[in-house]
Amino acid sequence: MPPQNVYDNATFFENYSTLPRSVHGLDGAPEWPRLQTFLPDLKGRKVLDLGCGFGWFCRWAVDHGAATVHGIDISNNMLEKARVMTEEGGRRYRGITYARADLDSLELPESDTDSYDVAFSSLAFHYLENLPRLVQLVRRVLKPGGKLVFNVEHPIFTAPPAPALKVDPGTGGKYWKLEDYQKQGLRSRPWFVDAVEKQHRTMTAYVNLLLDNGFVLTDFDEWHPTAGDLEAHPEWETEMIRPMFLLIGATKNHWMVPTS
Amino acid sequence: MPPQNVYDNATFFENYSTLPRSVHGLDGAPEWPRLQTFLPDLKGRKVLDLGCGFGWFCRWAVDHGAATVHGIDISNNMLEKARVMTEEGGRRYRGITYARADLDSLELPESDTDSYDVAFSSLAFHYLENLPRLVQLVRRVLKPGGKLVFNVEHPIFTAPPAPALKVDPGTGGKYWKLEDYQKQGLRSRPWFVDAVEKQHRTMTAYVNLLLDNGFVLTDFDEWHPTAGDLEAHPEWETEMIRPMFLLIGATKNHWMVPTS
Repeated sequence: MPPQNVYDNATFFENYSTLPRSVHGLDGAPEWPRLQTFLPDLKGRKVLDLGCGFGWFCRWAVDHGAATVHGIDISNNMLEKARVMTEEGGRRYRGITYARADLDSLELPESDTDSYDVAFSSLAFHYLENLPRLVQLVRRVLKPGGKLVFNVEHPIFTAPPAPALKVDPGTGGKYWKLEDYQKQGLRSRPWFVDAVEKQHRTMTAYVNLLLDNGFVLTDFDEWHPTAGDLEAHPEWETEMIRPMFLLIGATKNHWMVPTS
Repeated sequence: MPPQNVYDNATFFENYSTLPRSVHGLDGAPEWPRLQTFLPDLKGRKVLDLGCGFGWFCRWAVDHGAATVHGIDISNNMLEKARVMTEEGGRRYRGITYARADLDSLELPESDTDSYDVAFSSLAFHYLENLPRLVQLVRRVLKPGGKLVFNVEHPIFTAPPAPALKVDPGTGGKYWKLEDYQKQGLRSRPWFVDAVEKQHRTMTAYVNLLLDNGFVLTDFDEWHPTAGDLEAHPEWETEMIRPMFLLIGATKNHWMVPTS
């Protein structure tokens, strides 16, 4: 099956480009303030961005001292816009390189082994059929002690075949119709276009993927709005019903963890 | 508020005593085969059982080579039965001691510091108001590298104020009505008696409680039935809709985990 590249569908891309996180970048992503705390000091570091989209994080990383940032994305549409915005930044962004690749079949050269300080990914991993392969690759290219920081759509959010907040006709209260949590695999959802293909994985799958591949879990959050967020965005009250984003940080283990 | 001790309520205890896990012990607990894999070799080890109930695990631990096992429970009813069953085992179980205590205010002597190899707890932590205090105590009494293994009712299971599997009138499909996931705290539920008080915590709360208190996460599972389980118990198909049990293993960190 050819890799899904919905971001190069014209209808999808046009609509996606109007989302707050497309227009305002990291500042338009409600989970970013929390995810940011998982990152180490980037000064002088070599950074990998898996699913870089418009390159917002690549530029943020350089603005925060990263020496080099390599951004990878499957979408020509997004890379084209990323390159334009990076070029407009001039010499300041000369440390950024972009490459087009499908993360399900990404290859990185032998010379990259043990070379990256940080691997970052925002809302990309839940599209991948072969996430274990990518996690093994990330482990190979990170330095010992290097850090993987990523977010995905939360397993509670990806589980139902037809996800929806429903209203209880008796009480008027809202609830999340949770189904098929333990049935991992493809979920096909309408999102601007008829079908966007995502992969549902359980929390167990994400956590053990890291533990089984020599990572130490260091950061974990199911994003929810703060009291201040709720004052500014009362409509985010629905985010208290079920989590939408799972945020994880993990370091490449360079010792043996005793398990017995 | 006095500690809840529903197990010493006569009606509750009479009903609880008929559950498969009360009658058949560990073999009556569907999640036990998985939880057991989180335990290290117990040969010669010093073991703590937090919420020991009828003492099934205490005796299992001795049968698997543990040198000493200290079982703690709030319920006189349960400890009485545990002591009878242990005494019936004769000299074989002389390594077992029991003590009555509320896990929310448990004290252990200074001489216990850095002395336990394993701390175990089955379906007790979700009753506790002050779980952070207990986790800090467990960290103190475990040896460096010692292991905490526990299960709790899963956060998806404890979240709703009125938990229930519902049937969609349109499709006939079953779903879990998830509500208030991000609102932690007391959940009062009818279970044999009018109100059993449990504490809802998110997955984030459980994981960070460990990370923040110097544990390294080593094992993680949201129990679900295997294909074989489903053949033997077709009624467990509901367990594929939402997880009921969260199983965790973690070791007391005796090094610094690099976080940046």
